Amino acid sequence: MASLKAKFGRAVRKLRDEAGYSQESFADSIGVHRTYMGTLERGKGNPTLEMIGKVARGLRVSLSTLFEAVEREPG
Amino acid sequence: MASLKAKFGRAVRKLRDEAGYSQESFADSIGVHRTYMGTLERGKGNPTLEMIGKVARGLRVSLSTLFEAVEREPG
Repeated sequence: MASLKAKFGRAVRKLRDEAGYSQESFADSIGVHRTYMGTLERGKGNPTLEMIGKVARGLRVSLSTLFEAVEREPG
Repeated sequence: MASLKAKFGRAVRKLRDEAGYSQESFADSIGVHRTYMGTLERGKGNPTLEMIGKVARGLRVSLSTLFEAVEREPG
């Protein structure tokens, strides 16, 4: 089973791509370092609630919508 | 506006009460210290993705369902 961190990272990458952001422009838009976004999207980060909220706001989706996308990622 | 941490804590407390767990028995069931659950429920914690996943599994709800409950908390 894919870890939750891996599924989260893949869902964020998809939503960011769909929103038309590069990793760097998205990172800039939410005020995090671009290497941190890379870490998150590779499933290597364990973001806090507040960071997850920041990512969702940047993607302009609700937290429940973000986690629906996470749950759609293959396990 | 209530902080995300405060809304998260209130939603977790409600779902835990509805599931019939005391704070202590729930903490035991997911393998965290009961004082940590108190901190979370008071909106003073900033749990990581993995901890949020552990809480959702303990409550037997999906992450999207958990965050729907968070979003229903008054802002």
